[in-house]
Amino acid sequence: MSKNRETSAGDLLSGMRIGIVGLGLMGGSLALALRGRVAGLVAIERQADIRQLALRQGVVDEAVDAISDGAPAVDLLVLATPIRTIVDTIGRLPSLYPNGCAVIDLGSTKRDVVAAMNALPDHYAAIGGHPMCGRETAGLASATADLYRGQNFFLCPTRRATPALEATVLALIEALGARPIVMDAAAHDSAVAVVSHLPALLAASLMRSAADERLWTAAASGFRDTSRLAGSDTRMMLDILMTNRDAVLDALESCRAELAAMHDALAAGDEAALVEWLAAAQVSYAAYRRFTSAAHLLPAGGRSGLEDPSKIA
Amino acid sequence: MSKNRETSAGDLLSGMRIGIVGLGLMGGSLALALRGRVAGLVAIERQADIRQLALRQGVVDEAVDAISDGAPAVDLLVLATPIRTIVDTIGRLPSLYPNGCAVIDLGSTKRDVVAAMNALPDHYAAIGGHPMCGRETAGLASATADLYRGQNFFLCPTRRATPALEATVLALIEALGARPIVMDAAAHDSAVAVVSHLPALLAASLMRSAADERLWTAAASGFRDTSRLAGSDTRMMLDILMTNRDAVLDALESCRAELAAMHDALAAGDEAALVEWLAAAQVSYAAYRRFTSAAHLLPAGGRSGLEDPSKIA
Repeated sequence: MSKNRETSAGDLLSGMRIGIVGLGLMGGSLALALRGRVAGLVAIERQADIRQLALRQGVVDEAVDAISDGAPAVDLLVLATPIRTIVDTIGRLPSLYPNGCAVIDLGSTKRDVVAAMNALPDHYAAIGGHPMCGRETAGLASATADLYRGQNFFLCPTRRATPALEATVLALIEALGARPIVMDAAAHDSAVAVVSHLPALLAASLMRSAADERLWTAAASGFRDTSRLAGSDTRMMLDILMTNRDAVLDALESCRAELAAMHDALAAGDEAALVEWLAAAQVSYAAYRRFTSAAHLLPAGGRSGLEDPSKIA
Repeated sequence: MSKNRETSAGDLLSGMRIGIVGLGLMGGSLALALRGRVAGLVAIERQADIRQLALRQGVVDEAVDAISDGAPAVDLLVLATPIRTIVDTIGRLPSLYPNGCAVIDLGSTKRDVVAAMNALPDHYAAIGGHPMCGRETAGLASATADLYRGQNFFLCPTRRATPALEATVLALIEALGARPIVMDAAAHDSAVAVVSHLPALLAASLMRSAADERLWTAAASGFRDTSRLAGSDTRMMLDILMTNRDAVLDALESCRAELAAMHDALAAGDEAALVEWLAAAQVSYAAYRRFTSAAHLLPAGGRSGLEDPSKIA
């Protein structure tokens, strides 16, 4: 990544007004990371107490109630609400911004979002986004400026992606210190069903099985880590599940079959089958950790992870 | 915890020779934590390379191949092998140490171990132990002196517990910086089936469902944490499962029912049921985190967590 490139990416953003719809964990962390690096940050947030907190702490420069509340003039709109609200908002953009606008979202599933973006008139610019970061606690109070740093940021091509929006989005991701990766919406949704939504459901199942507090004295770091995603925001999870039903059901069925095989081998006392089952998981885990260690050697914040930028626009 | 108490606990240990059977993650970490604080550390370890490494690095003062290889004279024997080897070793103590000995184990399930201890002649002293710590990587190479620090250390009463062994074991736990908690072996095994063995099986199921490396680019911290226990040592896990079958099968059945309920609600698109299911898990998770935070306020290394010391001896 050349010095020139950093400068031009910074220049591109420094003149922009960014609107963030939804000032929760993701939108709030985005605002904290961009503070002082853009011409203006406008929060579009329904909760008055969050708007007041954000203004009082200087997280944003302006805050309005709803996007219809004046439809603030911005150079880029970042949609950071639960997914079905993102889809609704995209559908309302033609009435809110009749002259067009540029938009990216931060939603955890992408097929419904990309379909809504594809349906926009052709004077709108839109790219689907999914930064692979989060936290088990929701809301602006949990937001941090470094949430995105070093993380993968998926970009899903749409029929409304433009070279100008691509440049803006890549500059934004660079400013966040994240790593852009282009992936088709359907492939993205299948992958996150297994590596993101399934873990959240397993964590919640574990927590529901271990709800009796008399068990918790015996809970150590293994339980703490395996249950962590049970703390995920319920509304966010509901929208994820409802917009990725088929892929999540497939992932659940695969995992339930694994647990059934383990259960049957254990009930039968079949040690050879138990060893095979455990060892295959251990081998995959070791390979995944090697993969992750190697990925961490790639520079973040640049275009290194962008397989083919031409696929976006 | 008074100064006097610390001194007397230290004095008690400082004159002792401790034998550690199995110099893996747990035994090795115990040796590192006790180094220089006891009169002698003897490793009983089958693998010659591990014995040589331990002697070369000064982890222990002596190392022998097998417990039968001279049955080293020690004041306390700590059994730190996989559980079924622990049970075998306890059964062999009368021939190895015909004049009796004092023993504690570090195994993850306790009913079979306590039953074997109960069957010892009455000139043996024995207490079941289970420190609630570990790591997803096994072996002496992963051992650290602080593995036990701040962690709960379960003690399971046996018919062979004596006041002298109790004092030694509490001094040992104090030296490790851990927190002693007395629990009946059956209650212990039921609890760890849910909060320790079930999470390990969920992690392994997740890893088996996500074995295709094309998925791993999309894997973030949630997957990393939920899958971590899939790295657990296979032989250790096999012994855990085989010595806690009924409790693990119960835990698996409970969790499989939770996943089935989630699957059916999602397949039916029953949003009310999904919200109820997710919200209950989130509420339990929040309560568990509050419980854990409060537990961390208790002093470690003392007797504070020892509900009723009289139950051991």
